[in-house]
Amino acid sequence: MAAERLIYLPLGGAGEVGMNMYVYGYGRPGNERYILVDVGVTFPDMDGTPGVDLIFPDIDWIAERVDRLDAIFITHAHEDHVGALGHLYPRLTVPIYARKFTAHIARLKMEEHGYDGTEVTTVGPMPEMIEAGPFKVGFMPISHSIPESSGLIIDTPAGRVVHSGDFKIDETPGLGEPFDVDAWGNLGPVKALICDSTNVFTRHPGKSEATVGPEIERVVREARGMVVATTFASNIARVKTLAEAGAAAGRSVVLMGRAMKKMIGAAVETGLIKDFPPTITPEEARDVPREYLMLLATGSQGERRAASAQLSRGKFQGLEMKAGDTFIFSSKTIPGNEVSVGRITNALSELDVDVIDDKMADIHVSGHANRPDLERMHQLVQPQFLVPMHGEHRMLREHAKLGEAGGVASVIAPNGTMVSLSGNRPEVVEFVETGRLYLDGSVQVGALDGVVRDRIRMALNGQVVIGVLIDEEDEPLTDTWAELRGLAELGQSRAPLQDVLEEEVGQFLGRADSKTVADDDRLEEQVKRIVRNTCLSEIGKKPEVFVLISRLAA
Amino acid sequence: MAAERLIYLPLGGAGEVGMNMYVYGYGRPGNERYILVDVGVTFPDMDGTPGVDLIFPDIDWIAERVDRLDAIFITHAHEDHVGALGHLYPRLTVPIYARKFTAHIARLKMEEHGYDGTEVTTVGPMPEMIEAGPFKVGFMPISHSIPESSGLIIDTPAGRVVHSGDFKIDETPGLGEPFDVDAWGNLGPVKALICDSTNVFTRHPGKSEATVGPEIERVVREARGMVVATTFASNIARVKTLAEAGAAAGRSVVLMGRAMKKMIGAAVETGLIKDFPPTITPEEARDVPREYLMLLATGSQGERRAASAQLSRGKFQGLEMKAGDTFIFSSKTIPGNEVSVGRITNALSELDVDVIDDKMADIHVSGHANRPDLERMHQLVQPQFLVPMHGEHRMLREHAKLGEAGGVASVIAPNGTMVSLSGNRPEVVEFVETGRLYLDGSVQVGALDGVVRDRIRMALNGQVVIGVLIDEEDEPLTDTWAELRGLAELGQSRAPLQDVLEEEVGQFLGRADSKTVADDDRLEEQVKRIVRNTCLSEIGKKPEVFVLISRLAA
Repeated sequence: MAAERLIYLPLGGAGEVGMNMYVYGYGRPGNERYILVDVGVTFPDMDGTPGVDLIFPDIDWIAERVDRLDAIFITHAHEDHVGALGHLYPRLTVPIYARKFTAHIARLKMEEHGYDGTEVTTVGPMPEMIEAGPFKVGFMPISHSIPESSGLIIDTPAGRVVHSGDFKIDETPGLGEPFDVDAWGNLGPVKALICDSTNVFTRHPGKSEATVGPEIERVVREARGMVVATTFASNIARVKTLAEAGAAAGRSVVLMGRAMKKMIGAAVETGLIKDFPPTITPEEARDVPREYLMLLATGSQGERRAASAQLSRGKFQGLEMKAGDTFIFSSKTIPGNEVSVGRITNALSELDVDVIDDKMADIHVSGHANRPDLERMHQLVQPQFLVPMHGEHRMLREHAKLGEAGGVASVIAPNGTMVSLSGNRPEVVEFVETGRLYLDGSVQVGALDGVVRDRIRMALNGQVVIGVLIDEEDEPLTDTWAELRGLAELGQSRAPLQDVLEEEVGQFLGRADSKTVADDDRLEEQVKRIVRNTCLSEIGKKPEVFVLISRLAA
Repeated sequence: MAAERLIYLPLGGAGEVGMNMYVYGYGRPGNERYILVDVGVTFPDMDGTPGVDLIFPDIDWIAERVDRLDAIFITHAHEDHVGALGHLYPRLTVPIYARKFTAHIARLKMEEHGYDGTEVTTVGPMPEMIEAGPFKVGFMPISHSIPESSGLIIDTPAGRVVHSGDFKIDETPGLGEPFDVDAWGNLGPVKALICDSTNVFTRHPGKSEATVGPEIERVVREARGMVVATTFASNIARVKTLAEAGAAAGRSVVLMGRAMKKMIGAAVETGLIKDFPPTITPEEARDVPREYLMLLATGSQGERRAASAQLSRGKFQGLEMKAGDTFIFSSKTIPGNEVSVGRITNALSELDVDVIDDKMADIHVSGHANRPDLERMHQLVQPQFLVPMHGEHRMLREHAKLGEAGGVASVIAPNGTMVSLSGNRPEVVEFVETGRLYLDGSVQVGALDGVVRDRIRMALNGQVVIGVLIDEEDEPLTDTWAELRGLAELGQSRAPLQDVLEEEVGQFLGRADSKTVADDDRLEEQVKRIVRNTCLSEIGKKPEVFVLISRLAA
């Protein structure tokens, strides 16, 4: 009988930024007991996932083994770590553990899906430990851009594993627990460090959250008209800093956007913040002179429906930006969002509003450990193995190189790579099928189901629908219908493309032999070919074609 | 009768980066004679223009006045300045002027559209001047990231106008004409400087092309396996530098991708380069050990079909990247292309190829003047007015602020803003309708025609086609057809969505009153409503719906 082993298997988040989901297992091969760390989402885009609402990891592998899954642990309350919880829980009905603030958000996610929230258990920080099968798991406070983030200390019969979660090394985080160098440096023998890789390419040491306060204060103090500032609502420390800068400059603070209210609400309810400056509602703000207003708005990534974008386009909740106002991006633009953020900046420019971003003033710091901070973490924890997680492939690879350069055995393990941590080196023991699941409206569809592929094709090629009628005598009516969508109306012949297509298909039907007419597939194939070729010569495109054949004889 | 006036009117490029097209006019209001500077394209994306091939400025305004258009001048051979020439020439049949290299590229564009190239006249640099109506226009050499770039010196009865074109201040450009400080500082009285704004937010002075050579040489020298480098093919100086670094390291140089061959070919044919290192073909390269190869590849912006992307995905023209190879991005990622470029970098990481980009080594410099360089240009030219061009709105605005801060009367004039330059201040005299024209396959469609809007809707919402048959007695057959595309197959009821829709529509048709059945619009409207509502409850989405009604009685 094979010996028991300790395994690590990322289902999401390794080979990408977002959608975090990591499996740890212990037991005989194929018969391990499991725990799951994080249940995150990633966000769709027009390029690859048009019309999709959210993206989850494909959980088939763990769902098929749910009888051996003992618990879910959530490291912190960012969407890419907790966002899929309510959606996927029906297939993962095991106890969920998180610290207070995270548990609060996790319960909101569960309640949105009709659960009562009791599925989520609030856990204190270490030394409290949760037993789950062969694992003992403790929440070790770590600094990040959301309160009560935690690394997980996972004790197993094969030794201690440290799962960093998302983190930075910040000894003055502004709000909540500072990074505790002593604690992190005294974890005892650590078998493996599973470690955030997001900022491995950033060469300078990270800056503390405490550094942004004075600069934000200066910017707000020097502003003349209304001030609007945006940042991630979940970055409670930052939102508080912005609010305090507003209050210090004699401005009334207004929270704009649902996430802003929800997050600050959660922070107050869970006792995280007690001294947030008083806020007024947008309605109340309408009666305040603009130079006494400080709006805190959602939408730092340019999201079209969030408060920032709305304000850039005109009135939002009765408030409107004007010449001489100032807009502050206390945030970084995530790669891929440059165009959306640019749209806001340009719209504000047209309104003659001054925009200040993190390139113009030191009003933002990252929540992730930069390269030298990662090295410091390796040195503090002194793990036997390093497994880089949370990052695109190039980041995992660079992080593994960094580990090896520091003398730590390291392995690149993108999603689906099962790594055994039991031996003297990390060893890839299996590749598991992984993928993505799309939330599309109210249903989940597989990334490879073809639904989204068909949408992209329609968007790229446009579409023609052709109606063909076969009468009671099995003769086609030559009077066909063509409907075009997403295609030019006029082609090379200067006649309406619709007319040309109806004419061409009609002519074909008039001369089609009875064998073709009798065979749906054959008829459809031929009509499609005629439509595609006609479109190619008329407008230089081969559209998607639907052929609807109606047979009256049947 | 109104006095004669000098006007400036951007039709493209002002309020965006790309698609440059600027009108200058002189004469009585409404009766001016015109010249056109640049005829550029911009590139589509999935986000806003799926399926579109190229984007041009809407030229209605100038095409309607083509009898008063005297000439077209092309400042340089970048696509966003010359790319639309062949496409739009049929509506702008006037003489085209450019310098030798640019004229060569312009002729290739014309020949692609069936012209013989004689429409383009090659012009020498100043002091040569072309007369065009009331204008005299000279090509003043200026440094940029493509050979023979020129600013235009436009003499008019109202004074001298300087149109900078795209430029940087580079006194050691590597190839071609250095920026001539004396010449630019001695243009005499200048009424208006129309000036590139792309890099106004970059605070440090720009670096010379000459600075990248030694660093590229070092990177190539230290590389072990095959080296692949990418940059814009039109940046002949850079391509030459890369090739020379390869040759110096004892590597054979291979040009990969059509643009690379076309551009180097044009530079050789026009005598711009005489000492380009000898190249071998990809076929020949297959027999050369990989450590003796240096590939120069197209696709620095992540274009899917260009050489770089192909190499990152596997074999391309018989060559393949492997562990230990090096890939060099001697380029900057244009905002919006981060995800595509990231896709290549990650694919290379999976192949264990080392990637070096401009953040890791000083192997790229911009072709545009940074903020301090713009200030220096203002000081050299000492114009009475400044009109920022070529840039997003926020860049035009910032550049105008910079001009005003330096004591130059400045005006923000996005596309469609007609500015009179005749008086003592630049004055906005009219707003002209402008927009975009899409090349879609082989036809041009207006941006507001709805073609692309319909494609985006299909991509976001998916689509249902319903066929309804009304028999000879004007009774609907309740046996309907539904076809779905881009939609989940199963909804909440766990029955196929197609069946559910056919059932619902059939039931409706069975109970529909004769008035509804007799009226196409009404029938269509009601069927659509049923389909949308059914989809909303089944899958949480409202798809696009096509209803095809066939009447046998007709």
